[in-house]
Amino acid sequence: MKMISEFTDHDHIEGQFLLGSVSKGVNANGGSYFSVELRDASGSITAKKWDATLLDEDIFITGNVISVIGETNRYKDALQLKILSATIVPLEEIDVNRFLKAPPIKKEELIVKYNNYVTSIKNEDCQKILKYMINKYSDKLYSYPAAVSIHHEYSSGLLMHSVTMADIATFLYKIYDADYDILVTGCLLHDLGKVIELEGPIVYKYSLEGKLLGHISIMVSEIRKAADELKLSSEVPLLLEHMVLSHHGQPDFGSPIMPLTKEALLLSLIDNLDSKMVVVNKALTDVEPGNFSNKVFPLDNRTFYKPKDE
Amino acid sequence: MKMISEFTDHDHIEGQFLLGSVSKGVNANGGSYFSVELRDASGSITAKKWDATLLDEDIFITGNVISVIGETNRYKDALQLKILSATIVPLEEIDVNRFLKAPPIKKEELIVKYNNYVTSIKNEDCQKILKYMINKYSDKLYSYPAAVSIHHEYSSGLLMHSVTMADIATFLYKIYDADYDILVTGCLLHDLGKVIELEGPIVYKYSLEGKLLGHISIMVSEIRKAADELKLSSEVPLLLEHMVLSHHGQPDFGSPIMPLTKEALLLSLIDNLDSKMVVVNKALTDVEPGNFSNKVFPLDNRTFYKPKDE
Amino acid sequence: MKMISEFTDHDHIEGQFLLGSVSKGVNANGGSYFSVELRDASGSITAKKWDATLLDEDIFITGNVISVIGETNRYKDALQLKILSATIVPLEEIDVNRFLKAPPIKKEELIVKYNNYVTSIKNEDCQKILKYMINKYSDKLYSYPAAVSIHHEYSSGLLMHSVTMADIATFLYKIYDADYDILVTGCLLHDLGKVIELEGPIVYKYSLEGKLLGHISIMVSEIRKAADELKLSSEVPLLLEHMVLSHHGQPDFGSPIMPLTKEALLLSLIDNLDSKMVVVNKALTDVEPGNFSNKVFPLDNRTFYKPKDE
Amino acid sequence: MKMISEFTDHDHIEGQFLLGSVSKGVNANGGSYFSVELRDASGSITAKKWDATLLDEDIFITGNVISVIGETNRYKDALQLKILSATIVPLEEIDVNRFLKAPPIKKEELIVKYNNYVTSIKNEDCQKILKYMINKYSDKLYSYPAAVSIHHEYSSGLLMHSVTMADIATFLYKIYDADYDILVTGCLLHDLGKVIELEGPIVYKYSLEGKLLGHISIMVSEIRKAADELKLSSEVPLLLEHMVLSHHGQPDFGSPIMPLTKEALLLSLIDNLDSKMVVVNKALTDVEPGNFSNKVFPLDNRTFYKPKDE
Amino acid sequence: MKMISEFTDHDHIEGQFLLGSVSKGVNANGGSYFSVELRDASGSITAKKWDATLLDEDIFITGNVISVIGETNRYKDALQLKILSATIVPLEEIDVNRFLKAPPIKKEELIVKYNNYVTSIKNEDCQKILKYMINKYSDKLYSYPAAVSIHHEYSSGLLMHSVTMADIATFLYKIYDADYDILVTGCLLHDLGKVIELEGPIVYKYSLEGKLLGHISIMVSEIRKAADELKLSSEVPLLLEHMVLSHHGQPDFGSPIMPLTKEALLLSLIDNLDSKMVVVNKALTDVEPGNFSNKVFPLDNRTFYKPKDE
Amino acid sequence: MKMISEFTDHDHIEGQFLLGSVSKGVNANGGSYFSVELRDASGSITAKKWDATLLDEDIFITGNVISVIGETNRYKDALQLKILSATIVPLEEIDVNRFLKAPPIKKEELIVKYNNYVTSIKNEDCQKILKYMINKYSDKLYSYPAAVSIHHEYSSGLLMHSVTMADIATFLYKIYDADYDILVTGCLLHDLGKVIELEGPIVYKYSLEGKLLGHISIMVSEIRKAADELKLSSEVPLLLEHMVLSHHGQPDFGSPIMPLTKEALLLSLIDNLDSKMVVVNKALTDVEPGNFSNKVFPLDNRTFYKPKDE
Repeated sequence: MKMISEFTDHDHIEGQFLLGSVSKGVNANGGSYFSVELRDASGSITAKKWDATLLDEDIFITGNVISVIGETNRYKDALQLKILSATIVPLEEIDVNRFLKAPPIKKEELIVKYNNYVTSIKNEDCQKILKYMINKYSDKLYSYPAAVSIHHEYSSGLLMHSVTMADIATFLYKIYDADYDILVTGCLLHDLGKVIELEGPIVYKYSLEGKLLGHISIMVSEIRKAADELKLSSEVPLLLEHMVLSHHGQPDFGSPIMPLTKEALLLSLIDNLDSKMVVVNKALTDVEPGNFSNKVFPLDNRTFYKPKDE
Repeated sequence: MKMISEFTDHDHIEGQFLLGSVSKGVNANGGSYFSVELRDASGSITAKKWDATLLDEDIFITGNVISVIGETNRYKDALQLKILSATIVPLEEIDVNRFLKAPPIKKEELIVKYNNYVTSIKNEDCQKILKYMINKYSDKLYSYPAAVSIHHEYSSGLLMHSVTMADIATFLYKIYDADYDILVTGCLLHDLGKVIELEGPIVYKYSLEGKLLGHISIMVSEIRKAADELKLSSEVPLLLEHMVLSHHGQPDFGSPIMPLTKEALLLSLIDNLDSKMVVVNKALTDVEPGNFSNKVFPLDNRTFYKPKDE
Repeated sequence: MKMISEFTDHDHIEGQFLLGSVSKGVNANGGSYFSVELRDASGSITAKKWDATLLDEDIFITGNVISVIGETNRYKDALQLKILSATIVPLEEIDVNRFLKAPPIKKEELIVKYNNYVTSIKNEDCQKILKYMINKYSDKLYSYPAAVSIHHEYSSGLLMHSVTMADIATFLYKIYDADYDILVTGCLLHDLGKVIELEGPIVYKYSLEGKLLGHISIMVSEIRKAADELKLSSEVPLLLEHMVLSHHGQPDFGSPIMPLTKEALLLSLIDNLDSKMVVVNKALTDVEPGNFSNKVFPLDNRTFYKPKDE
Repeated sequence: MKMISEFTDHDHIEGQFLLGSVSKGVNANGGSYFSVELRDASGSITAKKWDATLLDEDIFITGNVISVIGETNRYKDALQLKILSATIVPLEEIDVNRFLKAPPIKKEELIVKYNNYVTSIKNEDCQKILKYMINKYSDKLYSYPAAVSIHHEYSSGLLMHSVTMADIATFLYKIYDADYDILVTGCLLHDLGKVIELEGPIVYKYSLEGKLLGHISIMVSEIRKAADELKLSSEVPLLLEHMVLSHHGQPDFGSPIMPLTKEALLLSLIDNLDSKMVVVNKALTDVEPGNFSNKVFPLDNRTFYKPKDE
Repeated sequence: MKMISEFTDHDHIEGQFLLGSVSKGVNANGGSYFSVELRDASGSITAKKWDATLLDEDIFITGNVISVIGETNRYKDALQLKILSATIVPLEEIDVNRFLKAPPIKKEELIVKYNNYVTSIKNEDCQKILKYMINKYSDKLYSYPAAVSIHHEYSSGLLMHSVTMADIATFLYKIYDADYDILVTGCLLHDLGKVIELEGPIVYKYSLEGKLLGHISIMVSEIRKAADELKLSSEVPLLLEHMVLSHHGQPDFGSPIMPLTKEALLLSLIDNLDSKMVVVNKALTDVEPGNFSNKVFPLDNRTFYKPKDE
Repeated sequence: MKMISEFTDHDHIEGQFLLGSVSKGVNANGGSYFSVELRDASGSITAKKWDATLLDEDIFITGNVISVIGETNRYKDALQLKILSATIVPLEEIDVNRFLKAPPIKKEELIVKYNNYVTSIKNEDCQKILKYMINKYSDKLYSYPAAVSIHHEYSSGLLMHSVTMADIATFLYKIYDADYDILVTGCLLHDLGKVIELEGPIVYKYSLEGKLLGHISIMVSEIRKAADELKLSSEVPLLLEHMVLSHHGQPDFGSPIMPLTKEALLLSLIDNLDSKMVVVNKALTDVEPGNFSNKVFPLDNRTFYKPKDE
């Protein structure tokens, strides 16, 4: 089955697609139609379902995975898909591999990097807590996205984000004379609560626990429990709980306590930096030099400029 | 040994006192002196140490418990104490009973009320968690103050606050059709994290855990741990964790998640109401009718008016 | 004439209905149609007007009361109404009784409770002002809603809110040693300015005075005027004006002066508590256990969770 | 008796002065002393009371009017007063004329201007309300300061502010096509509530009504009462009440309703402009060209620069 | 070619129009249509394009200038235009004069007034900078709008705003003893950066420089450059740069430094006053007495009331 | 002359010192004394001037450089200095080298690093602007502190901060695929406006231009001027101006325009990170493990915890 990026003109298409944005319109002869965005891991395409019926209203809903038969054509220099038929794919029949976008670095490579960082840590209590968590959550840790939004999210986004932060931490801890073990353990664990906060498998949504507690509180409790079960008596669990609790930097952003140790402050600054840079890079992906991006919601709805090639 | 409220004019006084506010001045003949507030459970009195020496600077510090020899006299219609000698009392020699103010309701009575509320709860998971916590923390739960400030705080303030909230909850749950068991369990547990957040025994201060995590996060972890150890599988622990997490009502006040259940909302509103009313009642305690109180810091520095008796 | 709650399948319906939400769509054969919500005091029903004409655009407007002929049918397990004809009902022909939802407690009972509270007050100046106001505004006081929104509002909502607050005040004044007479008079009068701020009879809207002054300022002036006409010389009118002025608690919420007496503070806290609990109860009315409500606008657009029945 | 501005070196001084800022220090030989600011309508001078006694602590309090015997001398190029004796002046013996600073324009002239504006207004209801108010409050209207602060305030500051605003309104109403009568009546009445909000005679403080209601609410009630007594039936009283209510521009600054008519908006903008310009002019009064003023509290604690003379 | 204000019933119309708001609907027989607002300098008219085709979707876009053939008719007491054909007008064929609304005062008159103000200034450095700027930017200065919005904007709005502010400054500088030359130069230059911030010719949009720097920073640099080229050594350029930098009054509104001189403060207050009054006057233009305007976005979405004619 | 770090017990000391904090007290026999902090580049020491005279009040003022004769002694395990005589050092006689703290990296090394970064940049316009600025400002660029506070500030702090940011940029530009030349040029230039904003030589204060314009506006103008003089026509100057303008990240922190390019965003994030880490490192310098720092003003007055050595 062809992926979207492989479509050419006048293709006959059969396959599963994820529905992105959906809008309804009226065509020239008065009938109603759906103009929708179909997605798979390779990209997205605009598709039209002409002569929409009332039944179609239950099918064309953002987030549904649908089985489509259709034909491609070219409109205003872009490929479109004319949908001939569409039905909802039951959850158990979804071909997950069609939808998981590969991260910029291969998942296997990320797992190796993640575990290398774990091995690099000398503090025993950090080690024990990391291994406890990996033991308990590695499946989800290795596959979860970094955030709930479906737009352009990788599978393994959580892993990618954790590893990138550890990369940066490894560079910065020397400049600011921070504790390597505590700082890197914080990078590896700070967002792990998301494996409980979110539920998959394809379109990630907030779980009930996610809504009522949030990934920060969830993870603080997890560390406390680990420390108890592992009978740790050093300050390390407390320092890690504090880092997780404070890593969003301020109450307005979900951290009821602000960073109060050097490592907690540095972790929150690296997290802030990486999160924003990932967002701006996504926003600029398809922008031509000399143009502005669309509005970027998590960055105050600003539009970003991509300078000209000179 | 006489308590402050029993002092009369021309008394010879020997005893332990807690130092409240401290200020230094210069007397008519050029010597320096300390004007301080001495406290015990029965009240407070202004005291003067004339001809202060450099040594006195290490003694007269707010929060110290000092052993004093002195004599009372009358100045501008109020009793004062002239301090003849003062030394610091070592922690282990402090006579704690002189400083614990009795709550408006007797501690024993509060304990009975608290336990009656526990007994009144039918939901088994609520019961189990409550008993787990009482088993673990009853000593501190029965004796801790409700807040860190030493000013006019009762011993057992935490117990008093919890019981008053349960009283109000028992009246309101019927009006708003809320779940009695969940709501009252929330009242009894919501501030229990303070027994870890604060450290006594007399002048309560924030512990390291209190500073780095706060009583809300501490208690959320405690409930999660209790639920795990007790192998509870219902929604109840999650609902209780959410209530504790959200009971300050909004991120600015320490709750990263706002109340999302009826009972969590009602708990936060009762807590807000009781906390503010206790503060305003303290502020108005010694105000004469027709006058304004001092500025009340936790209520936006407002000054409150006590209407005339008419 | 049948009320909406009495409709069954295949009924022929004739009667007056209030238009709630209105949306326009396109049916399978290209014609446009209206999908609207019809309401009466007993409930609401989705109705469709197929083959809409341009004339229908002036009829199907939220807030209109329309006379409808139609037939019920069943769609996706719910009753719908197919509208065969619809015309606007002139204001003077509206059958008001079809639209006034009865409050949870009977209006007559509420009036008795309200007047019992008036009688219970011993302070003469409070008594005089209360009677002055009842004399002047009882008609509207007994029938007005508690807020401008038509959604799920009772007739007599203002009365219901005032009486509930007095109920709570009667419980709390003892706990916090507040002045019963002043506090309860405040409960009974604090929102009375709404009878001038809003205009009825069915769909309540802001009057010109309501927009330019608001119910708080209106009521402060009313009390001042009453006190002058009644030649009262005590502090009571000032205390009542202050309570009304400050009962929204802070400038952002419409109170230019924050509460500065114990009774004013307690009134504002009870008002805050009752207003929010009424809102959350409405929001959860039709939510199934284990689900979330829709977004609740006056509570920061949060969605509230109704716990599972266990 | 000499005014402060008339003091020269080596004068013997006897007279009444108002105490501005007060601070206490220690002199070279170990005694304590007071360094205070003495004021009268003509200016201020630094004064020293050496060898202060405990009795002096009840005398040298900001806001007291004291009777002083002393001698001037020169210190660091400025005149100082050495206080030989000081006693508090009883309220009834205060020589008010020594403390009322004359406004930049003579009071008599301001009264003429104010009344000319009243006469210039053609709208009968505006006229009636203005005359009602002048009749009731002219004494205070003609003598009150514009704000509670004692620093550099004129007597007749309220009158000065009202007249200046009317001057500006008379220029601007033509540019923006506003209603002259409504706008100017607003200028003349908007702050009149201050005659009830503040109490004199010399050091103006907030009255009980001022604290519990504020001058805005007080004046809204006054206009409503006037309109009732005068049996006015036009929109004019409502428009004036709205102007007064909204003239601080936004809820944070004391206006629960923001301006909703052109004239109310213009009034609030003129008030804002005049209030700030008066403050900045005061702050720059004694600043040398090329220097910055002290911090100006009502203007965000900024310091203002006076450009060089070039 | 007739202007919109000259249309009568049953006119045959051919001409260029600017497209204002655009909405799409469905007519009685199921076809789709466009309902649009056409504008020229004389006013606006509602127009309908029935039986819209897919091609029309590229034509009927807000901001396009289209060439229209159509016929007027009357609907609900208002003239409408039935569009028979519509095509986009290429940029170079736009008849600019049809779209530039004349300001309330004639452009020529405004230019005279502007230059009279320039001549009235005695300070040589102010003079030199003003002439430098006029020399460089007079074309745009004389023709630009005051803001980016196309709604009801004049050509020469920038000139109109600058001259009105100078008018008000000329009245106020005497009242507050401000420096005429500095203040009026500020009025004439403060918004001149808009000639670089915006790009025309008809529908003004933000230029790249406008987006990345804003008119305030642009103008500060311009003055600095002028001062360098003109080799000015007085404080005047710094004072003017500061006035431009601070004229929006506070950081939230685009001024990183708040006004710190009397003239800068006064300039920002006059700018605030004129900007808001122009907005409210526009909003009330077509409102009938006794009614409210639409929501006014730049004034907190308030709706303004136009009092009854009495 | 000995530096402070070289003092031992019973030393006779003569030399210049900078006065840090100053407080006045009263000694045992009633005389007044000064307790001050003396500083030089090597550290600080508490010093006492017993038997203070009125003349001393003009000498012991924070920020003065004084010439001291004194003797060291030991008090509570710390060295103190007893001041025997103290006089103010005239500006021209200050021995600057005693007060300039060396940065953690040698100044010469920093200059080499800075210039290596300049050389590493390939974009010609970036190169030209950098060289223009170095040519014009290298003296001050190489010696200025990074901020106005004298506390613990290095000489060459500005250079240190610029070079550290370039170090981090060189690591991060690859991760986020940013433009190396633009980003590093931004790091090297972003704070250069401080050489005009501040005035030295020892205690740096805001200059007039610094107060009225701020270093951001100053630098934007400088780049614009450079670009004009160098006749650059690429987008580069605009991109650099935008980076400088936006590098504080948001209006509240002094950037009227928020970052709108990837490089501007990254620059602001690196600046934020380095500034905060430098502050927290200073705050923790002398804190013992297991303790909290003093309140850190630029970090919301938080106190930071230094974990125990375990």
